[in-house]
Amino acid sequence: MFSIDRLMRLSSIIPVLTVPDPARAQPLARELVARGCRVLEVTLRTPAALEVIAEMAKVEGAVVGAGTVLNPRDLEASLEAGAKFIVSPGLTEPLTRAALECGIAYLPGVANAGDIMRGLDFELDHFKFFPAMASGGIPALKALAAPFARCRFCPTGGVTEATAPDWLALEQVLCVGGSWVADGL
Amino acid sequence: MFSIDRLMRLSSIIPVLTVPDPARAQPLARELVARGCRVLEVTLRTPAALEVIAEMAKVEGAVVGAGTVLNPRDLEASLEAGAKFIVSPGLTEPLTRAALECGIAYLPGVANAGDIMRGLDFELDHFKFFPAMASGGIPALKALAAPFARCRFCPTGGVTEATAPDWLALEQVLCVGGSWVADGL
Amino acid sequence: MFSIDRLMRLSSIIPVLTVPDPARAQPLARELVARGCRVLEVTLRTPAALEVIAEMAKVEGAVVGAGTVLNPRDLEASLEAGAKFIVSPGLTEPLTRAALECGIAYLPGVANAGDIMRGLDFELDHFKFFPAMASGGIPALKALAAPFARCRFCPTGGVTEATAPDWLALEQVLCVGGSWVADGL
Repeated sequence: MFSIDRLMRLSSIIPVLTVPDPARAQPLARELVARGCRVLEVTLRTPAALEVIAEMAKVEGAVVGAGTVLNPRDLEASLEAGAKFIVSPGLTEPLTRAALECGIAYLPGVANAGDIMRGLDFELDHFKFFPAMASGGIPALKALAAPFARCRFCPTGGVTEATAPDWLALEQVLCVGGSWVADGL
Repeated sequence: MFSIDRLMRLSSIIPVLTVPDPARAQPLARELVARGCRVLEVTLRTPAALEVIAEMAKVEGAVVGAGTVLNPRDLEASLEAGAKFIVSPGLTEPLTRAALECGIAYLPGVANAGDIMRGLDFELDHFKFFPAMASGGIPALKALAAPFARCRFCPTGGVTEATAPDWLALEQVLCVGGSWVADGL
Repeated sequence: MFSIDRLMRLSSIIPVLTVPDPARAQPLARELVARGCRVLEVTLRTPAALEVIAEMAKVEGAVVGAGTVLNPRDLEASLEAGAKFIVSPGLTEPLTRAALECGIAYLPGVANAGDIMRGLDFELDHFKFFPAMASGGIPALKALAAPFARCRFCPTGGVTEATAPDWLALEQVLCVGGSWVADGL
């Protein structure tokens, strides 16, 4: 089982994938892994998402997780589909407790200091910064992260191929999430 | 009793009213209803607010609610004054529980993904996006709402007559709140 | 014991100090008090922070508190070091309960309406607005504070010597926090 810290260091860009067609899952995952993206986040935004996770999980080298996990039910379904980690847009107590209980790597979204402190109360210190650009971009993350030196972040939401290197240059940023990676694939 | 979804579809603009003088309540409500604004939010920001709600509630065609509801005491007082719905700037557990218990239509304010997820945990999926402009405007709501396809929003705070149509063009926006509607009335 | 309201009115600028060397603590505090800054916030971001608080607390006229207090353990340690108040980047229930229990003046950080309402549920109505600039600056605080007329704020994070007067001109702002005050000292 991967820790969230190890996952976030596996590859600096995490493709955030919304895949309607399960038949596309394996070829897409293979292509992304070949390009160096081993950690794949499949959002639970399509009816086929769980099937897509199950298909992608069969691809060698891929570490497949579920995104847009909103509650313990989503978590349960993701686990059954073979997700190795989960990502949520925000941080709530019920989902956090459920994730800690089953021990899965969990990357909760945060957008302010209260969110981060609630995460720290649960011993979580790796977060998705979401939505990264709409929350104020790099200056906002810098200001927000300053009191939380031990925390590490994965900015997601509005990060582009062009801006990814600027985010990755921040000491507290381990990786970024983005949907552009799969464009045209 | 109106559901919050039905209320938000009654008229696309909800006047947010801070009315110090109860004698002005009925004429103002009549004028707004005549202009097509049936859903009226009276903020609890003046000593006369509850009386204003009671007066406006007598106007035919008006559906009058209380805004700036901060806690269960405010909710109780609003109900007694005849409010048909309540609006709050943010979302807390005590107020949400109280609103669900009495079954009143409730539109809680949200500004980030954690707020929305906490609302969803209570089966709430209609939210005020507040303060709409200061929270990043249309791009911010788009980014924030993306993982929450079933949620519907009423942006409030900095929305103007000029910008209302742009907000209303978003699929997840059912109506907007604004104080400009009563300007000059 | 100072109330948080009295503290926030003692001087309009609260230096936010990250001091690695305890030997510098007393001279620095004396210089700041001489310049009219009586309320000193020492962030718990260095190993020496608690010692720095203890040293500064010996300086006549200085009212020394701890910043970056994240949880009840930090609060406990700050109290033992002699802190007269605590400041946190965000607002959580465990820290708030602990602060109320021991009765220390507490200035929790907020960035949205939900935070403020959670604070009000605990009878807290004085808040740090953090990070002030990255959260949208003066227009954001104005919009956010409007429904909370009784609340008072200390904007911190990106406030500069040049912009401090603009913040202080807002009725609901009692003081600002900033690190620039100690620059060059």
